[in-house]
Amino acid sequence: MSDRINQGLEKAITYATANGCPPKIAEAIRYAIFPGGARIRPRLCLAIAGACGDANPHATNAAATAIELLHCASLIHDDMPCFDNAEIRRGKPTVHMAFSEPLALLTGDGLIVLAFETIARECVSSPHLIAPLITTISKAVGMPYGLVAGQAWESEPKIDLDQYHRAKTASLFTGAVSAGAISGGGDPLQWQGLGNALGAAYQIADDLYDYAGSSEKMGKPCGQDGTNNRPNSVEVYGIEGSLEQLAVKVDEAARCIPDCQGGDALRKLIRNEANRLVPEGLIDKTRTTSAA
Amino acid sequence: MSDRINQGLEKAITYATANGCPPKIAEAIRYAIFPGGARIRPRLCLAIAGACGDANPHATNAAATAIELLHCASLIHDDMPCFDNAEIRRGKPTVHMAFSEPLALLTGDGLIVLAFETIARECVSSPHLIAPLITTISKAVGMPYGLVAGQAWESEPKIDLDQYHRAKTASLFTGAVSAGAISGGGDPLQWQGLGNALGAAYQIADDLYDYAGSSEKMGKPCGQDGTNNRPNSVEVYGIEGSLEQLAVKVDEAARCIPDCQGGDALRKLIRNEANRLVPEGLIDKTRTTSAA
Repeated sequence: MSDRINQGLEKAITYATANGCPPKIAEAIRYAIFPGGARIRPRLCLAIAGACGDANPHATNAAATAIELLHCASLIHDDMPCFDNAEIRRGKPTVHMAFSEPLALLTGDGLIVLAFETIARECVSSPHLIAPLITTISKAVGMPYGLVAGQAWESEPKIDLDQYHRAKTASLFTGAVSAGAISGGGDPLQWQGLGNALGAAYQIADDLYDYAGSSEKMGKPCGQDGTNNRPNSVEVYGIEGSLEQLAVKVDEAARCIPDCQGGDALRKLIRNEANRLVPEGLIDKTRTTSAA
Repeated sequence: MSDRINQGLEKAITYATANGCPPKIAEAIRYAIFPGGARIRPRLCLAIAGACGDANPHATNAAATAIELLHCASLIHDDMPCFDNAEIRRGKPTVHMAFSEPLALLTGDGLIVLAFETIARECVSSPHLIAPLITTISKAVGMPYGLVAGQAWESEPKIDLDQYHRAKTASLFTGAVSAGAISGGGDPLQWQGLGNALGAAYQIADDLYDYAGSSEKMGKPCGQDGTNNRPNSVEVYGIEGSLEQLAVKVDEAARCIPDCQGGDALRKLIRNEANRLVPEGLIDKTRTTSAA
């Protein structure tokens, strides 16, 4: 699965950094994408498409690539001085630290464009999927309820925690699930419950990491939410409460999988992935909570 | 024509700022788009589509809207402190001055996503045009030869003036012409010469403004190229030389218009527009040059 993802990303980047392109941004683009993080969102997209029968593998690859490019773009912009001012990401200097602020801003912009271009270019054999994939993915990352909106909530004096989390993290998971269903030949509506539950689970996990994880293990600074005065589930529900909610959401996700040929494998995958969601120091607590 | 453009933009913005979206970014998005500048690029797109017979008016509107959204996004990001650090644009404070740096960055990101979303959503009656429109427009704004690449050349120690200008300004004019031809039912290859010539003409005009215009008339600070150590045609060819090149490119553009039902009207439009390209203090010089 990770071969398929890396090949898709490699193809897109090779196109974007073709001969004659300015060399520094070409280097920054590659630096931002390789080596990657856990590639959770594109893996989820491929897994759902597989469970639906993977009817249009080229479209699935394009959607997974686009989703990861957009995720990486959001990380680059989030790390910039006017947001998190983060120096480390995935164990190495962030793009603006390694290159410059202008190049970080442009790399993010370039990756957003490249994401949509990739879908339009790679879906030659399934052109009817281009519009649904692009509207689904742009809804997940754009305005009024996607990633951009989620980030924009941080500039508001009053933030609704649910609305903020749904937009900032859950939306791209929901988008990855819907895109996988669309390209795999399934009905995205049937998969909406799974997307929502997984999105909520990942957001809680992210908050747990931010609150309790160690910078060394994450390869990025933790405790940014507190530093930047952002709402965090742990502050609202406590560690125990958040772990409990995480277990509930993972169970809900597994139950929401519709009847499909790859259903059992997918349920197993989701339960396994759930164990990776919890910061190491808290694993014992989860097991207790999950077993309850 | 400007009604058609404003309606398309209004529709896209209404969608992006729907109920429940964070209020400040909603305000920033509208502020960045209305009231607009000359809307040259979408007008060009509509004019070419019209000359080709305007076979798919919804697709043309979507393409023109997307092109203007992307242009506005590039202005917002270009104005930010890590680039031009401009305080005024279109006679009012730039987005980061009026709102904040984070909101300016997010507004730009949101508009890029919205541009592609608009094409995918509005081309319901001509879905076969979605892929060619998106690949054409993303080529014009993205990597390796579009707007983003043009801006990225400014981070290189050595810049090729032609390559820089082609990417930073000409590419979006070429893209507007090609998109108009595609949605209008023409052959974009036949219109490539016009797109290239117009792109070059607008870049020279932009450099003339930057070098010789007054901030008051332009509604934005001039002389930024010198301040930011960027290459400018006027520095290379002088004012007289640049005016001469501008006239040559406008003539070339008018001659490059292929046989089509709206050809004469389009030729007239281009010659008229050309007069608006020259900073007022230099108009007499152009007339002499053009007549020569």
